[in-house]
Amino acid sequence: MTQAFFKVTDLDKVLARAAEVNPVGTEKIALSDAAGRVLSVDVISDTDLPDFYRATMDGYAVRAASTFGASEANPAYLTVKGVVEMGKTPLFAVGSGEAARISTGGMLPPGADSVVMVEHAEAVDDTTVEAYRSVAPGQHTIEPGEDFKRSEIVLERGSVLGPSETGLLAAFGLTSTNVYKKPVVAVISTGDEIVAVNESPGPGQIRDVNTYTLSAMIEKNGGRSLPMGIVRDDYDALFSTCSKALSQADMVLLSGGSSVGTRDFTIQVMKNLPDAKVLVHGIPISPGKPTILARAGGKMMWGLPGHVVSAMVVFTRVVKPFVQQLSGRKTVAIDRLGLPARITRNLSSAQGRIDYVRVRLKESDGILWAAPVLGKSALLNTMVKADGLIEIGMNSEGLDKGAQISVLPLD
Amino acid sequence: MTQAFFKVTDLDKVLARAAEVNPVGTEKIALSDAAGRVLSVDVISDTDLPDFYRATMDGYAVRAASTFGASEANPAYLTVKGVVEMGKTPLFAVGSGEAARISTGGMLPPGADSVVMVEHAEAVDDTTVEAYRSVAPGQHTIEPGEDFKRSEIVLERGSVLGPSETGLLAAFGLTSTNVYKKPVVAVISTGDEIVAVNESPGPGQIRDVNTYTLSAMIEKNGGRSLPMGIVRDDYDALFSTCSKALSQADMVLLSGGSSVGTRDFTIQVMKNLPDAKVLVHGIPISPGKPTILARAGGKMMWGLPGHVVSAMVVFTRVVKPFVQQLSGRKTVAIDRLGLPARITRNLSSAQGRIDYVRVRLKESDGILWAAPVLGKSALLNTMVKADGLIEIGMNSEGLDKGAQISVLPLD
Repeated sequence: MTQAFFKVTDLDKVLARAAEVNPVGTEKIALSDAAGRVLSVDVISDTDLPDFYRATMDGYAVRAASTFGASEANPAYLTVKGVVEMGKTPLFAVGSGEAARISTGGMLPPGADSVVMVEHAEAVDDTTVEAYRSVAPGQHTIEPGEDFKRSEIVLERGSVLGPSETGLLAAFGLTSTNVYKKPVVAVISTGDEIVAVNESPGPGQIRDVNTYTLSAMIEKNGGRSLPMGIVRDDYDALFSTCSKALSQADMVLLSGGSSVGTRDFTIQVMKNLPDAKVLVHGIPISPGKPTILARAGGKMMWGLPGHVVSAMVVFTRVVKPFVQQLSGRKTVAIDRLGLPARITRNLSSAQGRIDYVRVRLKESDGILWAAPVLGKSALLNTMVKADGLIEIGMNSEGLDKGAQISVLPLD
Repeated sequence: MTQAFFKVTDLDKVLARAAEVNPVGTEKIALSDAAGRVLSVDVISDTDLPDFYRATMDGYAVRAASTFGASEANPAYLTVKGVVEMGKTPLFAVGSGEAARISTGGMLPPGADSVVMVEHAEAVDDTTVEAYRSVAPGQHTIEPGEDFKRSEIVLERGSVLGPSETGLLAAFGLTSTNVYKKPVVAVISTGDEIVAVNESPGPGQIRDVNTYTLSAMIEKNGGRSLPMGIVRDDYDALFSTCSKALSQADMVLLSGGSSVGTRDFTIQVMKNLPDAKVLVHGIPISPGKPTILARAGGKMMWGLPGHVVSAMVVFTRVVKPFVQQLSGRKTVAIDRLGLPARITRNLSSAQGRIDYVRVRLKESDGILWAAPVLGKSALLNTMVKADGLIEIGMNSEGLDKGAQISVLPLD
């Protein structure tokens, strides 16, 4: 055992280790199942999009030059050559002084280069229309390739497939798509005092909350949870469950082990697993200081605190980037960024560690206020009351009432 | 046909109609499947939580009075009566001047009311420990019912089950839970120019993007999408598909009908369906002005624009509150709120309508900047480039560079 086991590791250095993990393979899935998945390939355009000259307004397809100088007082008189049918090639051309009735999405006839909006035109009779405004070439149209050109990269590897991206793949006819496999993250709850959710706790026992909380966080961040059940405070049982978890999952989370005995077992097991090394034992954050990170057989294993709130904080701030890296995500969605707010009261903080405080958001006079939810990190009620977390930095002695802070989602 | 069909309806009045829809029934599901679902009942505590006096730190369970006045210079000497085993009732009591070794989560022995942290104590021999700090009664412990009291409301009806809420249900032993059924929202794409995603578009045709985009948005907001396929510009076909959709779904979205003919059909069909009334025909928003809302047989039906970006904007700003109301959600999650940012350039806007502008976010010097993504609303690329939307109000002529704005998620 080296001294490193007792020295906390800076949060930055812990997070930098996320670069050591990689996505766990790819698979092809139906587009209708793709929501939230991560592209494992660059998607290249196989065609110009659109591949024809399209109207973006209802009106009359014309040569722009036919309308130059047109106004309410001096309209341009145009001869209507026909009506463009939706989804068909017009079988007539539009020349100088001519027009064709067209709907949004219709194909411009040969010779036309723009559309006069229906609001700016009036039919005089069946074959003549007055245009009250001039249009520029290209106005109210999309030209071939204006949206995407053939051979262009449409979506990059690592993009998360939200509604926009899914729609874009549909536009290119991709009924199936290549995505990274969801990383499997095993969850092990430890402790002699923990019973399964479907059991009645005896004296001194509590139900296993962390398996549910951590599983929900894993799934929300693009992973697949593999609950391994509850392990008693016993070296052999823990070793065996960890070995099994490592063989079935891409990352392993242990939580609990709050008792002194279990904590010792956890470190011992992590050291004794094949090809294992303890990388981090302690991070200067509160809650979450006793967090352990080890690598065994190329896979990351975490020892998280037993208190559910502490485990959630460590997951959000420390483990999550590893799950995202494993899932292949290149970007963080807008709704995962911190939300700026102001703090409702003075908050003190110890120097030399990063403090995470749960807050509840309230809007007042157009300002978003973050009210600290105080309470022990063993209390579940504080977790449900909180909308998010704020961070008080290493070198800060606290925050003054009204200070601008960033609220991070707690999931 | 009354004049109301041609008068736009204020956005506020349209949104107020969300109160007219209700959740569509309840079901009981396994807790492990509950992520993102909405509680349909108040969950009441059936026990004090915790139901025993718990340690929240490793150390020594004591009577606080035994430590009063203790300091490094003048420690309190305590007799160790035993070790508390995790998950068991201690079979000994702690009296004045006595202590019991205890781990986080352990049950306090009778007579103890607090815990001296292990960092503030040192064992002298097997039966004696020195405490260097005094503790107050209740310190480093949770008392029975401190987290939740019996018969208290633990989670309210309408709560979305995120990681915290799921964990809380686990703590109360609820392996299954009552939730609202996901509302089924039918999606109909209309237009002679639209072909299915697995088809090759002929001249003047494009693939059906809206079914995928809208389905993904429905699912992301707690609904279940029911794609009804593509309907040609034909009154009878549209009437028949709408009737089928109304019989199978809780709400219906039509998109497309960009051609003048289809728009007429859409209104006619909405008027002629059994027990139908057109409520809104036109909203002063851009894009999205031609949006239609009707009620048929007590269900809401929407006519959305055909351009995919316009349809997404209308969904985000107008339809989404109806989906949420149907799904029973009482609250909006932190990550669904607007994100404050500053605009990178001057933006002009027409008075008399609400303009929605797509923006891309960039952080620079700790400030979040929103850069407008300009481009026609028929272009898919603008949709993928954008991180969100900003709103320029009815009475505004525009925004100055640097102005504070709120960025809404576009999904």
